[in-house]
Amino acid sequence: MEKNISVELGCEHIRVACVGINGKIYQILSRPTQIHEGKEGLAKQIISMIHALDDASECKHIGIGVPGPVDTKKGIIRLCNHFPELENYAIVERIQQEIPLPCTLVNDVNAAALGEAYFGAGKNHESIYYISLSTGIGGAYIYHHRIISGNNGYAGEIGNMIVDQNRDKINKLNVGAIENEASGHAITREGQYVFGEDMIHNAGDVFEQVRKKDPVAIQLCEDVSKDLAVMLSTIALVLDPQVFIFGGGCMKSDDVFFPLMEEHFRSLIYDDMQDIQLVKEELEDPELLGLAMCASDNEKKA
Amino acid sequence: MEKNISVELGCEHIRVACVGINGKIYQILSRPTQIHEGKEGLAKQIISMIHALDDASECKHIGIGVPGPVDTKKGIIRLCNHFPELENYAIVERIQQEIPLPCTLVNDVNAAALGEAYFGAGKNHESIYYISLSTGIGGAYIYHHRIISGNNGYAGEIGNMIVDQNRDKINKLNVGAIENEASGHAITREGQYVFGEDMIHNAGDVFEQVRKKDPVAIQLCEDVSKDLAVMLSTIALVLDPQVFIFGGGCMKSDDVFFPLMEEHFRSLIYDDMQDIQLVKEELEDPELLGLAMCASDNEKKA
Repeated sequence: MEKNISVELGCEHIRVACVGINGKIYQILSRPTQIHEGKEGLAKQIISMIHALDDASECKHIGIGVPGPVDTKKGIIRLCNHFPELENYAIVERIQQEIPLPCTLVNDVNAAALGEAYFGAGKNHESIYYISLSTGIGGAYIYHHRIISGNNGYAGEIGNMIVDQNRDKINKLNVGAIENEASGHAITREGQYVFGEDMIHNAGDVFEQVRKKDPVAIQLCEDVSKDLAVMLSTIALVLDPQVFIFGGGCMKSDDVFFPLMEEHFRSLIYDDMQDIQLVKEELEDPELLGLAMCASDNEKKA
Repeated sequence: MEKNISVELGCEHIRVACVGINGKIYQILSRPTQIHEGKEGLAKQIISMIHALDDASECKHIGIGVPGPVDTKKGIIRLCNHFPELENYAIVERIQQEIPLPCTLVNDVNAAALGEAYFGAGKNHESIYYISLSTGIGGAYIYHHRIISGNNGYAGEIGNMIVDQNRDKINKLNVGAIENEASGHAITREGQYVFGEDMIHNAGDVFEQVRKKDPVAIQLCEDVSKDLAVMLSTIALVLDPQVFIFGGGCMKSDDVFFPLMEEHFRSLIYDDMQDIQLVKEELEDPELLGLAMCASDNEKKA
């Protein structure tokens, strides 16, 4: 069984795993991200973690997942809000100086989407749109097991998609960008505005108020669900995928908003499109699995 | 040189052509669409026009283009506002009863996009988004010369895409759907509302008022350009194509709205995406050329 190395560069932890292309995870190492060490420090940390894998010498390929858009062809991180120092860093070249394996740099949401496409909720589908509802909102289109990452690596940067031109300017994102209106961060912000910072620490706290039938929280949840539905309908009209697969922390509260979101979504698309499925992701570690499959991803060969 | 037959089922005319896969059109026949004869009458008209082509017997494949979404696999028209009688009509099966050639049914905008991808403004690009700005608004994504038509044939039905949730409900399309806000039909409607039906007969008449520096027309054009820019930014964030190619009747007035639209668009996308090109289509008959290439389109083989 061919094994590959998956590297997940997260904000809090770096995880390095040995993963078979059959979808089996043989080993995972996890360490706190040493962001204060700078980009060279991070690269060294990744390299030493790869060397620490039991079966590193048997592995054929490295897949590195990072938050934000990447230039997959050149192996360069393009935009990285969490680690601005990594922007324009040729991380693939640096890793390959010490570990001479083919290495692919991938956006983390794209990697998770590919994992679900091969082994999870998308395994019986040809065209998948994966959506991460987390602190931020990201998307990824997988077509016949191929990541469509776009000309600049920005395909799926749907957090900046405008769902309503008549909202407030909040930050550098577009006015009415979905990430400012319906992400975990946005729900927390709105919840704190209503209930105060003592009561609301994250989106889950707001959803808990919905479960307790607080009318203001219910309205907030209704608004968020409607905005998400507008985003989904837009993506559906562009791509008409077989299935939308949802991951990310907000899905812990899918009981609260998901049925509402789906109902609004179905009211916004054509009758002939109603067989589009909306499902929750199935895997525990879709990103690690997807990263192991990047070598099999043939976007570059197309 | 392999030759194919292209059939363009338009609202006013049916055009049947003999087209080489080198992009050369050898012959075009055009006749008024006999819509009052019903679907069987239309099928007979198409068949007799194909028989009337000089080189019909040398042709290897038939491509049929129709307005609205189609089921390419089954050869069935799904939704057809102009010819409701054709909905769910198995037109491919009917044609093949009399002409035993492989035959592919394609949405007309998808076909035009494929034509531009092979021989026009998209010929040096791998990922193309084609937009038809006409009475209605439609789109098509071409990836490595492959039409991405979606699970139900509805990919690219962007006319129903919401650009602003706070508009009026006008018809069965979504509130704030781009086709109700910025299509040729919408521009005509708004122009007639302001200037009267005597003065405005089509979108071109409104654009003419902009050229004459009428302030109300200028504002209308500004609003339309902004809405189109929101639509474009959304598609760009989903797909990040190399180029947007624009066709359709409204492009006759591109001098009036296109620079405005592009300026707004560029303000809504990331710096790294600014190399996305916005260009006008290059071909006179992109749909006929695209229909001839449908046999080479390998969506079904992917």
